[in-house]
Amino acid sequence: MLRFGLFGAGRIGRVHADSVTAHPQARLVAVHDPMQASAEDLAGRHDARVATDAEAIIAAGDIDAVVIGSPTPTHVDLMTRAVRAGKAVLCEKPIDLDLARVDACWQDLEDDGGTIMIGFNRRFDPSFADVKARVDAGEIGALEQLTIVSRDPAPAPEGYISSSGGIFRDMTIHDFDLARFLLGDIVEVQAMGANLIEPYIERVGDHDSAMVLMRAAGGALCQITNSRRCSYGYDQRIEAFGSVATLTVGNLTPTAVRRQDARGTEQAPPYLEFFLERYTPAYRAELDHFVTSVLRGTAPSPGFADGREALALADAADESLRAGRAVRLDG
Amino acid sequence: MLRFGLFGAGRIGRVHADSVTAHPQARLVAVHDPMQASAEDLAGRHDARVATDAEAIIAAGDIDAVVIGSPTPTHVDLMTRAVRAGKAVLCEKPIDLDLARVDACWQDLEDDGGTIMIGFNRRFDPSFADVKARVDAGEIGALEQLTIVSRDPAPAPEGYISSSGGIFRDMTIHDFDLARFLLGDIVEVQAMGANLIEPYIERVGDHDSAMVLMRAAGGALCQITNSRRCSYGYDQRIEAFGSVATLTVGNLTPTAVRRQDARGTEQAPPYLEFFLERYTPAYRAELDHFVTSVLRGTAPSPGFADGREALALADAADESLRAGRAVRLDG
Amino acid sequence: MLRFGLFGAGRIGRVHADSVTAHPQARLVAVHDPMQASAEDLAGRHDARVATDAEAIIAAGDIDAVVIGSPTPTHVDLMTRAVRAGKAVLCEKPIDLDLARVDACWQDLEDDGGTIMIGFNRRFDPSFADVKARVDAGEIGALEQLTIVSRDPAPAPEGYISSSGGIFRDMTIHDFDLARFLLGDIVEVQAMGANLIEPYIERVGDHDSAMVLMRAAGGALCQITNSRRCSYGYDQRIEAFGSVATLTVGNLTPTAVRRQDARGTEQAPPYLEFFLERYTPAYRAELDHFVTSVLRGTAPSPGFADGREALALADAADESLRAGRAVRLDG
Amino acid sequence: MLRFGLFGAGRIGRVHADSVTAHPQARLVAVHDPMQASAEDLAGRHDARVATDAEAIIAAGDIDAVVIGSPTPTHVDLMTRAVRAGKAVLCEKPIDLDLARVDACWQDLEDDGGTIMIGFNRRFDPSFADVKARVDAGEIGALEQLTIVSRDPAPAPEGYISSSGGIFRDMTIHDFDLARFLLGDIVEVQAMGANLIEPYIERVGDHDSAMVLMRAAGGALCQITNSRRCSYGYDQRIEAFGSVATLTVGNLTPTAVRRQDARGTEQAPPYLEFFLERYTPAYRAELDHFVTSVLRGTAPSPGFADGREALALADAADESLRAGRAVRLDG
Repeated sequence: MLRFGLFGAGRIGRVHADSVTAHPQARLVAVHDPMQASAEDLAGRHDARVATDAEAIIAAGDIDAVVIGSPTPTHVDLMTRAVRAGKAVLCEKPIDLDLARVDACWQDLEDDGGTIMIGFNRRFDPSFADVKARVDAGEIGALEQLTIVSRDPAPAPEGYISSSGGIFRDMTIHDFDLARFLLGDIVEVQAMGANLIEPYIERVGDHDSAMVLMRAAGGALCQITNSRRCSYGYDQRIEAFGSVATLTVGNLTPTAVRRQDARGTEQAPPYLEFFLERYTPAYRAELDHFVTSVLRGTAPSPGFADGREALALADAADESLRAGRAVRLDG
Repeated sequence: MLRFGLFGAGRIGRVHADSVTAHPQARLVAVHDPMQASAEDLAGRHDARVATDAEAIIAAGDIDAVVIGSPTPTHVDLMTRAVRAGKAVLCEKPIDLDLARVDACWQDLEDDGGTIMIGFNRRFDPSFADVKARVDAGEIGALEQLTIVSRDPAPAPEGYISSSGGIFRDMTIHDFDLARFLLGDIVEVQAMGANLIEPYIERVGDHDSAMVLMRAAGGALCQITNSRRCSYGYDQRIEAFGSVATLTVGNLTPTAVRRQDARGTEQAPPYLEFFLERYTPAYRAELDHFVTSVLRGTAPSPGFADGREALALADAADESLRAGRAVRLDG
Repeated sequence: MLRFGLFGAGRIGRVHADSVTAHPQARLVAVHDPMQASAEDLAGRHDARVATDAEAIIAAGDIDAVVIGSPTPTHVDLMTRAVRAGKAVLCEKPIDLDLARVDACWQDLEDDGGTIMIGFNRRFDPSFADVKARVDAGEIGALEQLTIVSRDPAPAPEGYISSSGGIFRDMTIHDFDLARFLLGDIVEVQAMGANLIEPYIERVGDHDSAMVLMRAAGGALCQITNSRRCSYGYDQRIEAFGSVATLTVGNLTPTAVRRQDARGTEQAPPYLEFFLERYTPAYRAELDHFVTSVLRGTAPSPGFADGREALALADAADESLRAGRAVRLDG
Repeated sequence: MLRFGLFGAGRIGRVHADSVTAHPQARLVAVHDPMQASAEDLAGRHDARVATDAEAIIAAGDIDAVVIGSPTPTHVDLMTRAVRAGKAVLCEKPIDLDLARVDACWQDLEDDGGTIMIGFNRRFDPSFADVKARVDAGEIGALEQLTIVSRDPAPAPEGYISSSGGIFRDMTIHDFDLARFLLGDIVEVQAMGANLIEPYIERVGDHDSAMVLMRAAGGALCQITNSRRCSYGYDQRIEAFGSVATLTVGNLTPTAVRRQDARGTEQAPPYLEFFLERYTPAYRAELDHFVTSVLRGTAPSPGFADGREALALADAADESLRAGRAVRLDG
């Protein structure tokens, strides 16, 4: 049995709380959130206690592991303290928006030998995980061209966007990790951005639409398409084009109902609305991997280095977009 | 080169005229239709002459083969005369609406050794023909359950319905032939009909909706679904359920465009409107089979007996529907 | 909070136990099964007690409702006793294999005013339920032709088949209920059966393949296709053909991965294996409907009469198949 | 009636000859090809004469229009001479591999006011044309992101590749034109190439795999994916992502047959093999547009300038790939 403390009682915190409670070998012990009411509500629904400050979780003797689902700026501090207190850590992405700070954190923690997993949930989506397993098993021959499409149903509000670190660090970071998951190290990045949707996104210096090209160390090419708005719901697809076969993952619909009429045929319903709906099974599988790894004493994956590399790719994309040239990464 | 005379310058006559002209080894020589203007128009567009009466085609020395696309009541007479005149015959379905008359015709012609092909166009649809070839090759193991869906986009007018011989002889007859094409001889028929669409169809004693169950001599089961009206276009599908695999044929769309929006996803356009659009390649392949068979001196298929059997099944379905019981056919 | 006793710790009993435990307003209190070890194992995993005989559940003061997941011959007795003891009942289908016994049970219970729900899980499948809601809302106009396909992945063993009551009472009964769910009362039945798969099924006097035609009181037609074996998994589809639109429900795949290679394109994985996988969400929704209804004091649906009617349709299909004629039901 | 001369009796010449003959208002009069035997064979099958040199077509009084389907290096010369001789010209892409030569040709011809159409066949594919019409009609709102996938089934031989001008001028040029067709002018290009398939492609200094990002003058983004080899056939897809809806065009299969078995479900056949099969209707529609335009005295499209711009984009992609930076085009 793994006993959990949870930082953050917001949307993503609630997802993790549900996963912990549903897991037969995990239990939620305490919740902390500066919004006391949120913490109380969430703790109440899970028979957990409210921790009035972070230290009440860090120092608790009856807590083995923490989930960090609080705002990004708190991640490095909480992760560092939790590792030093001997707790296993499952931290939401990104580790931080500043690569230098991430590297400093790593230098700090390296000698502690702690257990850190970064919450790149898509690796645990049953379809994406199936593609990974089949690619690794050699089913498609050499993976030559990877295509990732990731579009949100609607843009986040200005307040969120302005502190998000920009589209590459906030949104594309999931795609950078998915690319590394399937292709390994990336050595070259080119990016293009545009402002087509909401004026406030341009006002805060960000882009609402982006396309990225990447080259993997093994030679394969990859492209990513992002948009902050998609008329037909959350658009999450990949295509792994191989030398002897190709695997694709399409979007998911809430039911298997199709409609035919004078206007059209084979009409499926809109896709699952957003990440909470689309990735429900992924969040469960992610937590299961974390729990199982910790209980067995093996290293969970993706780890700290994966979180670091995804951020480095976001930085590279940003630089490419601004400089109008390809950016090479040190292999 | 096979030189053709054509009876009937209506909708189906024009389809056959196009097929003849497009075929490198066929040529349209003469057209006859009681509607002189139609005959002239069609003949004009194909550099053919107008035959002022049927005999002008039957007796013509420069005509090797005839296509009978005139109204059903004329089929037996024209077929008989053409065969006796030594011409190969491609006759539209059905041979006649009266089984006794069909059998009498057969007795008449048996000794003449003529070449007769019945125009069951669906056997030549590339998808249905592919299913047939793969079933014959053993790809699905034993064919155990055959499902045929056939729905027209909109009911024919009262005048057509009232002289059509009823839904089984007019519409289902294609499905009866398709069932025999894939399953061989049929030994038992059960049928149910309903009037759900147009009052005039009931008024003339016909049904606008029907479902039929059949058992093949080899043991397999078959079901047919018909409707005289279909909101999304011409609905023509089959499913060949086998012991180790199943082959299905879905409907065809005019383009490969799909639409996604807030109302739905993967929205295809309405299906191809009706038989002229859906079976264009089938009509071409049908004529090619006829021409090739005649030029090679082999028997084209489906032949007279196939036309006779499909009509016998229509009679059996009619009897089953009226008597409310299964009707067995003499194997 | 609704406190449950469970009869039957077999495959379906375990499904219901999981649903009860997962429901926030339900709790599993006791389990009874003549196989003591099964009862202990299941009770242990749900923090419930083992009831050494049925009466220990019937008479228990801390139990409000029972789920009857024991073998069919026990249903009537357990249902009767539970209702008389004031407990709400969720009983697996079929109520019994003998219509006379079902009617006698009903006469017995009528005056008790008990709460009985029959476990026709498919009504609660999100896709089928969505079709029902949209049909009821008038979205497709008049429902004119209903097609139901239901095929098991592999035949049950001889022991199961021989005491199953035959394919219509054991397997098609779900389809009969689904037909009534969407079409209302059925007034005419025609059936055809075949033995194509396993000799032992014929040996015990049953069929492994069946097709059924039905007419609804409102005039619509319905067809059902069944097979005890399906090479590509559990085949569960419907088509609700309406006057202005048609809704279909296709099969479900475990992932959204598709494969393209030299052998073929758009290749989806085999469908979800069997009812436990296909109808997981349906079982949860079924229990939720039962719990909510009981707690609110409303009648859950489908009720006893629905269980009775589905069995009457199975009897009619049996009679039609044996007599080779249409069987009419008293509306 | 438009009377045609044809330069080139190879694969693409034969396609155009078929289109001319099938067109009711066009007739093939003469064919020229340095391979006399090819010219004779093709002319023979179309009742046309063989022109022993190009001039015999250029100077012929009974020829109104020419199709230039000879090797690329001959295009500029033949086009120039034909225009000066007053003949309408349908010239295969590309005009030439050297942009300077194209511009010089244009300067030469500008004052002649001739009729020139460039054979970008994809604009006439029924699905792509439908997308164009619907985008122009405002159906998807603003077109924000265009995705084009174009992969050949197998790489051309070394001899072809070495004189092809490279993947961007030979293969991507179709995609550049398609992008311009849907998005209008392009202002920025980034490209990445790789050698993953055949060593001889790298040996001659070309790439076998490529990805391109582009920005349109209106702000939209576009990406192109190319490969010289595709295991599942000719891969030709587009996605037009708009602000209120998205239209996609998938690949085409030769039949509508799908297979289900223990290995997988919904298995479609491999896609249509290559451009001759995939774009048959497009070639017919292309010729029809040319014939209709010339007979009506209107300018056919795409014209010379479109051929020039597609080549300019290929040059820009080449430069971007070599310099590792974004290349801007003068709007």
